[in-house]
Amino acid sequence: MSESNLKSMSDLVSLCKRRGFIFQSSEIYGGLGSCWDYAPYGIQLKNNVKESWWKAMTFREDVVGIDASIFMHPMVWKASGHVDGFSDPMVDCKSCKERYREDQIDTSKPCAKCGATDFTEPRDFNLMFNTQMGAVTDSSSTVYLRPETAQGIFVNFLNVQQTMRKKLPFGIAQIGKAFRNEITPGNFIFRTREFEQMEMQFFVKPGTQLDAMEKWKEVRWQWHIDNGLRAEKLRWEPHGPDSLAHYADAATDIEYEFPMGWGEMEGIHSRTDFDLKRHEEFSKKNLKYLDTEDGNKKYLPYVLETSVGCDRAVLALLCDAYRLENEGDKENERVVMKFHPKIAPIKVAVLPLVKKEKLDTPARKLFETIQKNYQAEYDVAGSIGKRYRRQDEIGTPLCVTFDFDTLDDNAVTVRDRDTMTQERVAIDQLDKYLRDKLGF
Amino acid sequence: MSESNLKSMSDLVSLCKRRGFIFQSSEIYGGLGSCWDYAPYGIQLKNNVKESWWKAMTFREDVVGIDASIFMHPMVWKASGHVDGFSDPMVDCKSCKERYREDQIDTSKPCAKCGATDFTEPRDFNLMFNTQMGAVTDSSSTVYLRPETAQGIFVNFLNVQQTMRKKLPFGIAQIGKAFRNEITPGNFIFRTREFEQMEMQFFVKPGTQLDAMEKWKEVRWQWHIDNGLRAEKLRWEPHGPDSLAHYADAATDIEYEFPMGWGEMEGIHSRTDFDLKRHEEFSKKNLKYLDTEDGNKKYLPYVLETSVGCDRAVLALLCDAYRLENEGDKENERVVMKFHPKIAPIKVAVLPLVKKEKLDTPARKLFETIQKNYQAEYDVAGSIGKRYRRQDEIGTPLCVTFDFDTLDDNAVTVRDRDTMTQERVAIDQLDKYLRDKLGF
Repeated sequence: MSESNLKSMSDLVSLCKRRGFIFQSSEIYGGLGSCWDYAPYGIQLKNNVKESWWKAMTFREDVVGIDASIFMHPMVWKASGHVDGFSDPMVDCKSCKERYREDQIDTSKPCAKCGATDFTEPRDFNLMFNTQMGAVTDSSSTVYLRPETAQGIFVNFLNVQQTMRKKLPFGIAQIGKAFRNEITPGNFIFRTREFEQMEMQFFVKPGTQLDAMEKWKEVRWQWHIDNGLRAEKLRWEPHGPDSLAHYADAATDIEYEFPMGWGEMEGIHSRTDFDLKRHEEFSKKNLKYLDTEDGNKKYLPYVLETSVGCDRAVLALLCDAYRLENEGDKENERVVMKFHPKIAPIKVAVLPLVKKEKLDTPARKLFETIQKNYQAEYDVAGSIGKRYRRQDEIGTPLCVTFDFDTLDDNAVTVRDRDTMTQERVAIDQLDKYLRDKLGF
Repeated sequence: MSESNLKSMSDLVSLCKRRGFIFQSSEIYGGLGSCWDYAPYGIQLKNNVKESWWKAMTFREDVVGIDASIFMHPMVWKASGHVDGFSDPMVDCKSCKERYREDQIDTSKPCAKCGATDFTEPRDFNLMFNTQMGAVTDSSSTVYLRPETAQGIFVNFLNVQQTMRKKLPFGIAQIGKAFRNEITPGNFIFRTREFEQMEMQFFVKPGTQLDAMEKWKEVRWQWHIDNGLRAEKLRWEPHGPDSLAHYADAATDIEYEFPMGWGEMEGIHSRTDFDLKRHEEFSKKNLKYLDTEDGNKKYLPYVLETSVGCDRAVLALLCDAYRLENEGDKENERVVMKFHPKIAPIKVAVLPLVKKEKLDTPARKLFETIQKNYQAEYDVAGSIGKRYRRQDEIGTPLCVTFDFDTLDDNAVTVRDRDTMTQERVAIDQLDKYLRDKLGF
């Protein structure tokens, strides 16, 4: 298979706009900083990624799912450390008022905007969005938009463990939105202020966390491979002692090589009992696990976290699938999105050769049958060559063409996206053919 | 099938807590007003409802899906009328400061809290949550949490229509969170400040909107029936001329009879071209559709909306499924959740008769096979009778019991949740048996 040759993010942004993957949010109003909307093919792609993760993570005996609300009690963020510590130091140019993250500029140099050299002292800027809940507007009604989904799992730990009668080790998985008022969002959907996380917290007996980490590292790496990402575009980025978060005793990231360089896609962090301990302290509730298999000892479990940025996983899949083939050869140049069939937004397109009722009626009937089992599309507008190219850009693995011969021989032509070869397949064999080719 | 006999919401809240459907948000901190977390069975149930809706609404040629961000350009809410008009008139008791919605109390009577009779004049209280985006805190950075998902569809209308090359009539569907700072939330997950909507806006040629409404009324009613709700608990509630929203020329709701009375679950509203017209006006962009099939006329489509409260649909399914059977008969009393198999969070439970390795190992192997196709659960803890009762309360349609005879005859006992009858089924016939019984 040819290499992905995506040269710049802007080529991808342009394809995503043109072909209905991702649009700028509120575009008719000039857009809203770093907010993006998933268009029809984009949301199918994203849903496929979420379903792939949910099945891999919760269709197993030792993990259950939850879905906590975005609004949580404000004390949760006090306990987690976000109210006091989740901030970036900011400096302002005294002349033009442009604001910078202190760690991203050299304050001994002139302001990049106006050239002045005088900056304010750094001030902490909390990255949590806040709002007021209820009718009375005072500080007691301040609530936050969660900056991470993890805390929704920690505060529910004991309720889940007890109602589901789980024994250690077990995990709780969750997919949901989180929000951070990033000062410098960017790189398309890589860093946005509103994003979706797919997180699992795995609760283990203290002392066994590093074994659990090794096991989950393997599972999580394999998940990305199974979605079709190429191993050579993935790497481990372990956190050294200096870059470990205060709550972690070991941590590593899975990075993907995006067009702008290597970037974190997933974190696998051994969070110790930091969060549960803090919630015990702040809530005054006993959150200890009763270990009936070890002399009824009571203790706080240690936590091994796997946390994927859902939008980043989607971005990696888009980058990885992108191929510009036969560049400059006008006749044969094409962009093709080589998604794994499991991930592709549309699995099968049904195309009547020309727009004639004689073909349209039976072809549409065939489409309706296929659509019962697969995300499918019916396309009748334009030349067959143009329609193939369009399906290539959407990443549809198989196109089923219904022509005049079909009316006689009851067979269709199936075109393969990657090889562009065509095979004649009897309609009564089509279901099996699609299943074999798509792999499900 | 016996009648649902849920007498009060509190019985359901209690079951949902005890059996892992729904927990109070941030419970260890005393909870957060009207916020709820979906626990393991609850999120499976909700995901099944969402999947059922998504397939019914987007696996068709004339509807595509999108997923717009929660943050949108603030002008969107100016155009939609929410900034100026989405408010409730509130009055405060001058004595104790308790706040009331003016339309929900009789201000000529004493305050329900302190008995005083002096209230302030009514003041408008906007129901949108707002927050500040970016590093500078001034009015220009105010953004809102969307109070409805519909506007995310309207602002994307032309982009979707053009990239997907859709002709009228066609629809755009979306599932997503919305937020309203309700003054009087309540009734469990019926009215909450954070909730999920499943909305579809169907764009039609002006003049055909009432025909489209009739068609969609049928489709939407049938969806609730197909999920297992009983028709006698559903009714149409048409909006009379006095209760029509300012943007609508016809509207009707599907109501469900909850324990606290009839309540809206879904709205089917003919919204005219109100929203698109306002967005044209405020964005200064031409949003007109080019009708190539009618002399290249350009016009704004009319809109037919179907909007389900996802959490309300879940609540209706929970209420409808609830049965307390043989009340007072200590031996035979049980609570059973008679979910439709399609909707049930767990389809099949695998239960080794007793906790012995001889049974455990092969039973777990069988479980793993079943889990490849169905949301399944393995349960080994407690007497078989207790485990059946537990699965009844979760609403699992079928329990597969693996006993000592299984080791000889290679067959299992399958227990039916509703009839409690048991059948002996050969393991090599089990896949077909489950498929027939569950219907998929």
